[in-house]
Amino acid sequence: MENKFQLAKDVIYEAGNFIKERMAGDFAIEEKSRFDDLVTDLDRDVQNLMIQKIGDRYPQDDFLGEENGVVSDISKGNVWVLDPIDGTVNFIAQKHDFAVMIAYYEEGVGQFGLIYDVMADKLYSGGGLFPVTVNGKELTSFEDKPFNRSLIGVNSGMCIQNYRGIADFGQQTLGIRGIGSAGISISRVLEGRFLAYFTHISPWDYAAGSIMGEKLGYTIRDFDGHSPDYKTRQELMFVPKAKLSEILHHLK
Amino acid sequence: MENKFQLAKDVIYEAGNFIKERMAGDFAIEEKSRFDDLVTDLDRDVQNLMIQKIGDRYPQDDFLGEENGVVSDISKGNVWVLDPIDGTVNFIAQKHDFAVMIAYYEEGVGQFGLIYDVMADKLYSGGGLFPVTVNGKELTSFEDKPFNRSLIGVNSGMCIQNYRGIADFGQQTLGIRGIGSAGISISRVLEGRFLAYFTHISPWDYAAGSIMGEKLGYTIRDFDGHSPDYKTRQELMFVPKAKLSEILHHLK
Repeated sequence: MENKFQLAKDVIYEAGNFIKERMAGDFAIEEKSRFDDLVTDLDRDVQNLMIQKIGDRYPQDDFLGEENGVVSDISKGNVWVLDPIDGTVNFIAQKHDFAVMIAYYEEGVGQFGLIYDVMADKLYSGGGLFPVTVNGKELTSFEDKPFNRSLIGVNSGMCIQNYRGIADFGQQTLGIRGIGSAGISISRVLEGRFLAYFTHISPWDYAAGSIMGEKLGYTIRDFDGHSPDYKTRQELMFVPKAKLSEILHHLK
Repeated sequence: MENKFQLAKDVIYEAGNFIKERMAGDFAIEEKSRFDDLVTDLDRDVQNLMIQKIGDRYPQDDFLGEENGVVSDISKGNVWVLDPIDGTVNFIAQKHDFAVMIAYYEEGVGQFGLIYDVMADKLYSGGGLFPVTVNGKELTSFEDKPFNRSLIGVNSGMCIQNYRGIADFGQQTLGIRGIGSAGISISRVLEGRFLAYFTHISPWDYAAGSIMGEKLGYTIRDFDGHSPDYKTRQELMFVPKAKLSEILHHLK
Protein backbone atom coordinates (compact mmCIF):
# COMPACT_ATOMS: atom_id res chain seq x y z
CA MET A 1 0.00 0.00 0.00
CA GLU A 2 2.98 2.33 0.70
CA ASN A 3 4.04 1.92 -2.93
CA LYS A 4 0.59 2.73 -4.24
CA PHE A 5 0.32 5.78 -1.98
CA GLN A 6 3.73 7.02 -3.16
CA LEU A 7 2.74 6.46 -6.80
CA ALA A 8 -0.45 8.48 -6.22
CA LYS A 9 1.62 11.39 -4.89
CA ASP A 10 4.03 11.23 -7.84
CA VAL A 11 1.15 11.09 -10.32
CA ILE A 12 -0.76 13.98 -8.74
CA TYR A 13 2.29 16.27 -8.77
CA GLU A 14 2.97 15.27 -12.37
CA ALA A 15 -0.64 16.07 -13.27
CA GLY A 16 -0.36 19.46 -11.53
CA ASN A 17 2.81 20.34 -13.43
CA PHE A 18 1.26 19.21 -16.70
CA ILE A 19 -1.73 21.52 -16.07
CA LYS A 20 0.49 24.48 -15.14
CA GLU A 21 2.54 24.07 -18.31
CA ARG A 22 -0.45 23.68 -20.60
CA MET A 23 -2.65 26.39 -19.03
CA ALA A 24 -0.41 29.18 -20.32
CA GLY A 25 -1.24 28.19 -23.90
CA ASP A 26 -4.53 27.63 -25.70
CA PHE A 27 -6.89 24.85 -24.77
CA ALA A 28 -10.27 23.96 -26.21
CA ILE A 29 -13.36 24.58 -24.05
CA GLU A 30 -16.51 22.54 -24.63
CA GLU A 31 -19.97 22.79 -23.11
CA LYS A 32 -21.39 19.60 -21.58
CA SER A 33 -25.02 19.80 -20.31
CA ARG A 34 -25.27 23.65 -20.44
CA PHE A 35 -23.19 26.82 -20.95
CA ASP A 36 -21.76 26.77 -17.42
CA ASP A 37 -20.99 23.02 -17.37
CA LEU A 38 -17.61 23.08 -19.07
CA VAL A 39 -14.81 20.71 -19.91
CA THR A 40 -11.47 21.40 -21.58
CA ASP A 41 -9.30 19.08 -23.62
CA LEU A 42 -6.84 19.49 -20.75
CA ASP A 43 -9.26 17.73 -18.33
CA ARG A 44 -9.28 14.74 -20.68
CA ASP A 45 -5.53 14.77 -21.37
CA VAL A 46 -4.72 14.95 -17.64
CA GLN A 47 -7.01 12.02 -16.86
CA ASN A 48 -5.44 9.99 -19.67
CA LEU A 49 -1.99 10.80 -18.33
CA MET A 50 -2.98 9.66 -14.84
CA ILE A 51 -4.55 6.42 -16.07
CA GLN A 52 -1.50 5.66 -18.20
CA LYS A 53 0.97 6.22 -15.34
CA ILE A 54 -1.04 4.13 -12.86
CA GLY A 55 -2.06 1.47 -15.40
CA ASP A 56 1.57 0.93 -16.45
CA ARG A 57 2.43 -0.06 -12.87
CA TYR A 58 -0.84 -1.79 -11.94
CA PRO A 59 -2.38 -3.16 -15.15
CA GLN A 60 -5.03 -5.18 -13.24
CA ASP A 61 -6.46 -2.13 -11.46
CA ASP A 62 -9.64 -0.35 -12.60
CA PHE A 63 -10.61 3.32 -12.83
CA LEU A 64 -13.57 5.56 -12.16
CA GLY A 65 -12.99 9.01 -13.63
CA GLU A 66 -14.86 12.22 -14.39
CA GLU A 67 -14.00 12.20 -18.10
CA ASN A 68 -14.04 9.82 -21.06
CA GLY A 69 -16.69 7.42 -19.66
CA VAL A 70 -14.31 5.53 -17.37
CA VAL A 71 -16.81 4.06 -14.91
CA SER A 72 -15.72 1.11 -12.79
CA ASP A 73 -17.71 0.21 -9.68
CA ILE A 74 -15.66 1.03 -6.57
CA SER A 75 -17.16 -1.87 -4.62
CA LYS A 76 -15.27 -4.54 -6.60
CA GLY A 77 -11.52 -5.09 -6.98
CA ASN A 78 -8.88 -2.36 -6.93
CA VAL A 79 -10.31 0.94 -8.17
CA TRP A 80 -8.63 4.33 -8.59
CA VAL A 81 -11.05 7.27 -8.57
CA LEU A 82 -9.73 10.24 -10.54
CA ASP A 83 -10.76 13.87 -10.94
CA PRO A 84 -8.23 15.45 -13.31
CA ILE A 85 -9.46 19.06 -12.81
CA ASP A 86 -11.99 19.66 -10.05
CA GLY A 87 -13.37 23.19 -10.43
CA THR A 88 -13.06 23.39 -14.21
CA VAL A 89 -14.97 26.70 -14.27
CA ASN A 90 -12.46 28.22 -11.84
CA PHE A 91 -9.66 26.77 -13.94
CA ILE A 92 -11.04 28.49 -17.05
CA ALA A 93 -12.09 31.81 -15.52
CA GLN A 94 -9.50 32.24 -12.73
CA LYS A 95 -6.66 29.86 -13.54
CA HIS A 96 -6.76 29.33 -9.77
CA ASP A 97 -8.79 27.46 -7.11
CA PHE A 98 -8.92 24.09 -8.88
CA ALA A 99 -7.68 20.70 -7.70
CA VAL A 100 -6.54 17.29 -8.90
CA MET A 101 -7.93 14.40 -6.85
CA ILE A 102 -7.15 10.70 -6.47
CA ALA A 103 -8.82 8.13 -4.24
CA TYR A 104 -7.99 4.43 -4.06
CA TYR A 105 -10.37 1.61 -3.06
CA GLU A 106 -9.97 -2.13 -2.54
CA GLU A 107 -13.22 -4.12 -2.47
CA GLY A 108 -15.11 -0.94 -1.63
CA VAL A 109 -12.84 0.09 1.25
CA GLY A 110 -11.09 3.46 0.89
CA GLN A 111 -7.32 3.06 1.30
CA PHE A 112 -6.13 6.65 0.81
CA GLY A 113 -7.14 9.94 -0.78
CA LEU A 114 -5.31 12.95 -2.22
CA ILE A 115 -6.46 16.49 -3.03
CA TYR A 116 -3.90 18.73 -4.73
CA ASP A 117 -4.65 22.47 -4.78
CA VAL A 118 -2.39 23.09 -7.76
CA MET A 119 -1.89 26.87 -7.70
CA ALA A 120 -1.48 27.04 -3.92
CA ASP A 121 0.83 23.98 -4.17
CA LYS A 122 -0.92 22.32 -1.23
CA LEU A 123 -1.24 18.53 -1.19
CA TYR A 124 -3.72 17.01 1.26
CA SER A 125 -3.19 13.26 1.49
CA GLY A 126 -3.74 10.27 3.72
CA GLY A 127 -6.55 8.21 5.18
CA GLY A 128 -6.76 4.45 5.75
CA LEU A 129 -3.38 3.36 7.17
CA PHE A 130 -1.85 6.80 6.65
CA PRO A 131 -2.10 9.97 8.74
CA VAL A 132 -3.77 12.90 6.96
CA THR A 133 -1.26 15.61 6.16
CA VAL A 134 -1.04 18.86 4.21
CA ASN A 135 2.39 19.16 2.58
CA GLY A 136 3.63 16.64 5.13
CA LYS A 137 2.20 18.43 8.19
CA GLU A 138 -0.30 16.28 10.09
CA LEU A 139 -3.85 17.59 10.37
CA THR A 140 -5.74 17.26 13.64
CA SER A 141 -9.17 15.72 14.18
CA PHE A 142 -12.30 17.85 14.30
CA GLU A 143 -12.46 20.10 17.36
CA ASP A 144 -15.90 21.19 18.41
CA LYS A 145 -16.90 24.82 17.76
CA PRO A 146 -20.35 26.40 18.01
CA PHE A 147 -22.13 27.31 14.75
CA ASN A 148 -21.94 31.01 15.62
CA ARG A 149 -18.13 30.85 15.57
CA SER A 150 -17.94 28.85 12.32
CA LEU A 151 -18.18 29.37 8.57
CA ILE A 152 -19.75 26.94 6.12
CA GLY A 153 -19.05 26.38 2.43
CA VAL A 154 -22.10 26.11 0.18
CA ASN A 155 -22.59 25.66 -3.55
CA SER A 156 -23.87 29.06 -4.73
CA GLY A 157 -26.85 27.64 -6.64
CA MET A 158 -28.10 25.77 -3.55
CA CYS A 159 -27.53 28.87 -1.45
CA ILE A 160 -29.63 31.06 -3.78
CA GLN A 161 -32.46 28.50 -3.84
CA ASN A 162 -32.22 28.03 -0.05
CA TYR A 163 -32.19 24.30 -0.85
CA ARG A 164 -33.49 22.34 2.19
CA GLY A 165 -33.12 25.54 4.23
CA ILE A 166 -29.35 25.71 3.81
CA ALA A 167 -29.29 29.53 3.48
CA ASP A 168 -31.38 29.80 6.66
CA PHE A 169 -28.94 27.49 8.42
CA GLY A 170 -26.16 29.77 7.20
CA GLN A 171 -27.73 32.57 9.27
CA GLN A 172 -26.94 30.55 12.41
CA THR A 173 -23.25 30.58 11.44
CA LEU A 174 -20.72 33.36 10.91
CA GLY A 175 -21.38 33.17 7.20
CA ILE A 176 -21.44 31.27 3.94
CA ARG A 177 -18.49 31.02 1.56
CA GLY A 178 -18.51 29.79 -2.03
CA ILE A 179 -15.29 28.69 -3.72
CA GLY A 180 -16.47 26.70 -6.74
CA SER A 181 -14.33 23.60 -6.18
CA ALA A 182 -15.45 20.60 -4.12
CA GLY A 183 -11.87 19.51 -3.51
CA ILE A 184 -10.74 22.87 -2.17
CA SER A 185 -13.91 23.31 -0.11
CA ILE A 186 -13.47 19.85 1.45
CA SER A 187 -9.82 20.62 2.18
CA ARG A 188 -10.97 23.73 4.09
CA VAL A 189 -13.19 21.53 6.25
CA LEU A 190 -10.26 19.15 6.84
CA GLU A 191 -8.15 22.12 7.99
CA GLY A 192 -10.92 23.37 10.29
CA ARG A 193 -11.45 26.56 8.27
CA PHE A 194 -15.04 25.61 7.35
CA LEU A 195 -17.26 23.65 9.74
CA ALA A 196 -19.00 21.86 6.87
CA TYR A 197 -19.58 21.95 3.10
CA PHE A 198 -22.86 21.51 1.19
CA THR A 199 -23.12 20.88 -2.55
CA HIS A 200 -24.25 18.51 -5.29
CA ILE A 201 -21.40 16.38 -6.49
CA SER A 202 -20.28 13.12 -8.05
CA PRO A 203 -18.09 10.30 -6.62
CA TRP A 204 -14.82 11.67 -8.06
CA ASP A 205 -15.59 14.98 -6.27
CA TYR A 206 -15.94 13.47 -2.80
CA ALA A 207 -14.08 10.10 -2.76
CA ALA A 208 -10.67 11.48 -1.75
CA GLY A 209 -12.12 13.84 0.86
CA SER A 210 -14.33 11.12 2.24
CA ILE A 211 -11.39 8.75 2.88
CA MET A 212 -9.28 11.47 4.52
CA GLY A 213 -12.26 12.84 6.46
CA GLU A 214 -13.06 9.41 7.92
CA LYS A 215 -9.71 9.57 9.73
CA LEU A 216 -10.35 13.04 11.20
CA GLY A 217 -13.96 12.72 12.35
CA TYR A 218 -15.83 13.83 9.22
CA THR A 219 -18.39 12.04 7.11
CA ILE A 220 -20.09 12.52 3.74
CA ARG A 221 -23.89 12.20 3.80
CA ASP A 222 -26.94 13.21 1.87
CA PHE A 223 -29.33 15.78 3.35
CA ASP A 224 -31.26 12.99 5.10
CA GLY A 225 -28.12 11.59 6.73
CA HIS A 226 -27.60 8.61 4.41
CA SER A 227 -24.29 7.60 2.88
CA PRO A 228 -23.81 8.52 -0.80
CA ASP A 229 -24.14 5.91 -3.58
CA TYR A 230 -20.66 6.40 -5.13
CA LYS A 231 -22.37 6.24 -8.54
CA THR A 232 -24.55 9.29 -9.29
CA ARG A 233 -24.48 13.04 -8.73
CA GLN A 234 -26.20 13.79 -5.42
CA GLU A 235 -26.91 16.61 -2.96
CA LEU A 236 -24.34 15.92 -0.26
CA MET A 237 -22.69 17.42 2.78
CA PHE A 238 -19.25 16.92 4.24
CA VAL A 239 -19.70 17.40 7.99
CA PRO A 240 -18.13 16.56 11.37
CA LYS A 241 -19.72 13.31 12.64
CA ALA A 242 -20.14 14.99 16.03
CA LYS A 243 -22.31 17.69 14.41
CA LEU A 244 -24.33 15.49 12.05
CA SER A 245 -27.54 15.21 14.03
CA GLU A 246 -27.51 18.90 14.96
CA ILE A 247 -27.03 19.87 11.29
CA LEU A 248 -29.76 17.48 10.10
CA HIS A 249 -32.07 19.10 12.66
CA HIS A 250 -31.48 22.52 11.01
CA LEU A 251 -32.14 21.29 7.45
CA LYS A 252 -35.69 21.19 6.10
CA MET B 1 5.05 60.82 -3.14
CA GLU B 2 7.64 58.06 -3.72
CA ASN B 3 8.58 58.30 -0.04
CA LYS B 4 4.99 58.06 1.13
CA PHE B 5 4.33 55.08 -1.16
CA GLN B 6 7.43 53.31 0.17
CA LEU B 7 6.39 54.04 3.76
CA ALA B 8 2.95 52.57 3.03
CA LYS B 9 4.58 49.35 1.77
CA ASP B 10 6.84 49.14 4.82
CA VAL B 11 3.93 49.75 7.19
CA ILE B 12 1.63 47.21 5.52
CA TYR B 13 4.27 44.45 5.67
CA GLU B 14 4.95 45.32 9.30
CA ALA B 15 1.20 45.14 10.05
CA GLY B 16 1.01 41.75 8.30
CA ASN B 17 3.92 40.37 10.33
CA PHE B 18 2.43 41.73 13.55
CA ILE B 19 -0.87 39.94 12.77
CA LYS B 20 0.89 36.67 11.93
CA GLU B 21 2.83 36.75 15.20
CA ARG B 22 -0.16 37.62 17.33
CA MET B 23 -2.68 35.29 15.66
CA ALA B 24 -0.98 32.20 17.05
CA GLY B 25 -1.82 33.30 20.60
CA ASP B 26 -5.05 34.40 22.23
CA PHE B 27 -6.89 37.52 21.22
CA ALA B 28 -10.17 38.96 22.51
CA ILE B 29 -13.21 38.84 20.22
CA GLU B 30 -16.03 41.35 20.65
CA GLU B 31 -19.41 41.66 18.97
CA LYS B 32 -20.20 45.03 17.38
CA SER B 33 -23.73 45.42 15.94
CA ARG B 34 -24.63 41.66 16.06
CA PHE B 35 -23.13 38.22 16.66
CA ASP B 36 -21.56 38.01 13.20
CA ASP B 37 -20.17 41.58 13.19
CA LEU B 38 -16.93 40.99 15.05
CA VAL B 39 -13.81 42.86 16.02
CA THR B 40 -10.72 41.65 17.83
CA ASP B 41 -8.29 43.61 19.98
CA LEU B 42 -5.80 42.80 17.23
CA ASP B 43 -7.80 44.92 14.72
CA ARG B 44 -7.43 47.88 17.06
CA ASP B 45 -3.78 47.25 17.92
CA VAL B 46 -2.83 46.92 14.24
CA GLN B 47 -4.57 50.18 13.36
CA ASN B 48 -2.82 51.94 16.24
CA LEU B 49 0.51 50.57 15.04
CA MET B 50 -0.11 51.85 11.50
CA ILE B 51 -1.19 55.30 12.70
CA GLN B 52 1.84 55.56 14.95
CA LYS B 53 4.31 54.61 12.19
CA ILE B 54 2.78 56.98 9.63
CA GLY B 55 2.08 59.77 12.15
CA ASP B 56 5.71 59.71 13.33
CA ARG B 57 6.88 60.56 9.80
CA TYR B 58 3.97 62.78 8.75
CA PRO B 59 2.52 64.40 11.88
CA GLN B 60 0.34 66.83 9.87
CA ASP B 61 -1.51 64.03 8.02
CA ASP B 62 -4.97 62.80 9.02
CA PHE B 63 -6.53 59.33 9.19
CA LEU B 64 -9.78 57.58 8.38
CA GLY B 65 -9.84 54.10 9.89
CA GLU B 66 -12.22 51.25 10.55
CA GLU B 67 -11.56 51.15 14.29
CA ASN B 68 -11.34 53.52 17.26
CA GLY B 69 -13.50 56.32 15.76
CA VAL B 70 -10.74 57.76 13.56
CA VAL B 71 -12.86 59.61 11.00
CA SER B 72 -11.21 62.33 8.93
CA ASP B 73 -12.91 63.55 5.75
CA ILE B 74 -10.87 62.38 2.73
CA SER B 75 -11.79 65.49 0.71
CA LYS B 76 -9.56 67.84 2.76
CA GLY B 77 -5.79 67.76 3.33
CA ASN B 78 -3.66 64.61 3.39
CA VAL B 79 -5.65 61.61 4.56
CA TRP B 80 -4.57 57.99 5.05
CA VAL B 81 -7.42 55.48 4.91
CA LEU B 82 -6.69 52.34 6.94
CA ASP B 83 -8.29 48.94 7.28
CA PRO B 84 -6.16 46.95 9.75
CA ILE B 85 -7.94 43.60 9.19
CA ASP B 86 -10.40 43.41 6.32
CA GLY B 87 -12.36 40.16 6.61
CA THR B 88 -12.27 39.93 10.42
CA VAL B 89 -14.67 36.97 10.38
CA ASN B 90 -12.34 35.05 8.05
CA PHE B 91 -9.45 36.02 10.28
CA ILE B 92 -11.22 34.58 13.33
CA ALA B 93 -12.71 31.45 11.75
CA GLN B 94 -10.13 30.60 9.07
CA LYS B 95 -6.96 32.50 9.98
CA HIS B 96 -6.82 33.02 6.23
CA ASP B 97 -8.41 35.20 3.51
CA PHE B 98 -8.06 38.53 5.28
CA ALA B 99 -6.23 41.68 4.16
CA VAL B 100 -4.62 44.86 5.41
CA MET B 101 -5.42 47.94 3.31
CA ILE B 102 -4.03 51.46 2.98
CA ALA B 103 -5.17 54.27 0.68
CA TYR B 104 -3.73 57.76 0.53
CA TYR B 105 -5.58 60.93 -0.56
CA GLU B 106 -4.56 64.55 -1.06
CA GLU B 107 -7.43 67.04 -1.26
CA GLY B 108 -9.78 64.22 -2.20
CA VAL B 109 -7.58 62.82 -4.98
CA GLY B 110 -6.43 59.20 -4.55
CA GLN B 111 -2.63 58.97 -4.77
CA PHE B 112 -2.05 55.24 -4.23
CA GLY B 113 -3.66 52.19 -2.70
CA LEU B 114 -2.40 48.92 -1.20
CA ILE B 115 -4.14 45.62 -0.45
CA TYR B 116 -2.06 43.01 1.37
CA ASP B 117 -3.40 39.44 1.37
CA VAL B 118 -1.41 38.47 4.45
CA MET B 119 -1.53 34.65 4.40
CA ALA B 120 -0.98 34.40 0.63
CA ASP B 121 1.78 37.04 1.01
CA LYS B 122 0.46 38.97 -2.01
CA LEU B 123 0.75 42.75 -2.06
CA TYR B 124 -1.34 44.65 -4.60
CA SER B 125 -0.19 48.26 -4.81
CA GLY B 126 -0.16 51.31 -7.05
CA GLY B 127 -2.52 53.79 -8.64
CA GLY B 128 -2.10 57.52 -9.20
CA LEU B 129 1.46 58.04 -10.47
CA PHE B 130 2.38 54.39 -9.88
CA PRO B 131 1.72 51.31 -11.99
CA VAL B 132 -0.47 48.71 -10.30
CA THR B 133 1.53 45.61 -9.39
CA VAL B 134 1.14 42.39 -7.45
CA ASN B 135 4.39 41.54 -5.66
CA GLY B 136 6.13 43.81 -8.15
CA LYS B 137 4.59 42.28 -11.29
CA GLU B 138 2.55 44.79 -13.27
CA LEU B 139 -1.16 44.06 -13.71
CA THR B 140 -2.81 44.69 -17.06
CA SER B 141 -5.93 46.76 -17.74
CA PHE B 142 -9.35 45.14 -18.01
CA GLU B 143 -9.72 42.93 -21.07
CA ASP B 144 -13.26 42.41 -22.29
CA LYS B 145 -14.85 39.01 -21.68
CA PRO B 146 -18.49 38.01 -22.09
CA PHE B 147 -20.55 37.42 -18.93
CA ASN B 148 -20.93 33.73 -19.80
CA ARG B 149 -17.15 33.27 -19.58
CA SER B 150 -16.80 35.21 -16.32
CA LEU B 151 -17.28 34.76 -12.59
CA ILE B 152 -18.55 37.41 -10.19
CA GLY B 153 -17.91 37.88 -6.49
CA VAL B 154 -20.97 38.64 -4.37
CA ASN B 155 -21.57 39.17 -0.64
CA SER B 156 -23.43 36.04 0.46
CA GLY B 157 -26.21 37.94 2.23
CA MET B 158 -27.00 39.96 -0.91
CA CYS B 159 -26.84 36.80 -2.97
CA ILE B 160 -29.38 34.98 -0.75
CA GLN B 161 -31.76 37.98 -0.79
CA ASN B 162 -31.28 38.37 -4.57
CA TYR B 163 -30.67 42.05 -3.77
CA ARG B 164 -31.52 44.19 -6.83
CA GLY B 165 -31.55 40.97 -8.90
CA ILE B 166 -27.88 40.17 -8.29
CA ALA B 167 -28.47 36.40 -7.98
CA ASP B 168 -30.43 36.47 -11.26
CA PHE B 169 -27.57 38.34 -12.91
CA GLY B 170 -25.26 35.64 -11.57
CA GLN B 171 -27.17 33.15 -13.71
CA GLN B 172 -25.92 34.98 -16.81
CA THR B 173 -22.34 34.36 -15.68
CA LEU B 174 -20.32 31.20 -15.04
CA GLY B 175 -21.10 31.53 -11.37
CA ILE B 176 -21.00 33.43 -8.10
CA ARG B 177 -18.16 33.21 -5.61
CA GLY B 178 -18.13 34.46 -2.00
CA ILE B 179 -14.85 35.03 -0.17
CA GLY B 180 -15.83 37.18 2.80
CA SER B 181 -13.19 39.89 2.33
CA ALA B 182 -13.72 43.02 0.25
CA GLY B 183 -9.99 43.53 -0.21
CA ILE B 184 -9.36 40.02 -1.50
CA SER B 185 -12.47 40.09 -3.70
CA ILE B 186 -11.40 43.41 -5.23
CA SER B 187 -7.90 42.07 -5.81
CA ARG B 188 -9.45 39.17 -7.77
CA VAL B 189 -11.19 41.69 -10.01
CA LEU B 190 -7.88 43.58 -10.47
CA GLU B 191 -6.24 40.30 -11.54
CA GLY B 192 -9.07 39.49 -13.97
CA ARG B 193 -10.20 36.43 -11.97
CA PHE B 194 -13.63 37.95 -11.20
CA LEU B 195 -15.39 40.24 -13.69
CA ALA B 196 -16.94 42.30 -10.90
CA TYR B 197 -17.69 42.33 -7.16
CA PHE B 198 -20.93 43.30 -5.39
CA THR B 199 -21.26 43.99 -1.67
CA HIS B 200 -22.12 46.50 1.04
CA ILE B 201 -19.01 48.15 2.36
CA SER B 202 -17.45 51.21 3.98
CA PRO B 203 -14.78 53.63 2.67
CA TRP B 204 -11.84 51.73 4.22
CA ASP B 205 -13.06 48.60 2.40
CA TYR B 206 -13.00 50.15 -1.08
CA ALA B 207 -10.61 53.16 -1.02
CA ALA B 208 -7.42 51.25 -1.90
CA GLY B 209 -9.12 49.14 -4.57
CA SER B 210 -10.80 52.17 -6.05
CA ILE B 211 -7.50 54.04 -6.54
CA MET B 212 -5.77 51.00 -8.10
CA GLY B 213 -8.85 50.14 -10.17
CA GLU B 214 -9.03 53.64 -11.65
CA LYS B 215 -5.67 52.94 -13.31
CA LEU B 216 -6.79 49.60 -14.82
CA GLY B 217 -10.25 50.49 -16.12
CA TYR B 218 -12.41 49.69 -13.08
CA THR B 219 -14.76 51.89 -11.09
CA ILE B 220 -16.65 51.70 -7.80
CA ARG B 221 -20.34 52.65 -8.04
CA ASP B 222 -23.59 52.15 -6.23
CA PHE B 223 -26.29 49.99 -7.82
CA ASP B 224 -27.66 53.05 -9.65
CA GLY B 225 -24.29 53.92 -11.15
CA HIS B 226 -23.39 56.78 -8.80
CA SER B 227 -20.02 57.23 -7.10
CA PRO B 228 -19.87 56.27 -3.40
CA ASP B 229 -19.88 58.92 -0.65
CA TYR B 230 -16.61 57.86 1.05
CA LYS B 231 -18.42 58.33 4.39
CA THR B 232 -21.09 55.68 5.03
CA ARG B 233 -21.61 51.95 4.48
CA GLN B 234 -23.29 51.49 1.07
CA GLU B 235 -24.32 48.81 -1.40
CA LEU B 236 -21.57 49.07 -3.99
CA MET B 237 -20.05 47.28 -6.94
CA PHE B 238 -16.49 47.22 -8.27
CA VAL B 239 -16.85 46.82 -12.04
CA PRO B 240 -15.04 47.39 -15.34
CA LYS B 241 -16.01 50.83 -16.68
CA ALA B 242 -16.55 49.23 -20.09
CA LYS B 243 -19.20 46.91 -18.56
CA LEU B 244 -20.94 49.42 -16.28
CA SER B 245 -23.97 50.22 -18.43
CA GLU B 246 -24.48 46.55 -19.34
CA ILE B 247 -24.34 45.52 -15.66
CA LEU B 248 -26.70 48.34 -14.58
CA HIS B 249 -29.11 47.10 -17.26
CA HIS B 250 -29.17 43.64 -15.60
CA LEU B 251 -29.80 44.97 -12.06
CA LYS B 252 -33.33 45.66 -10.86
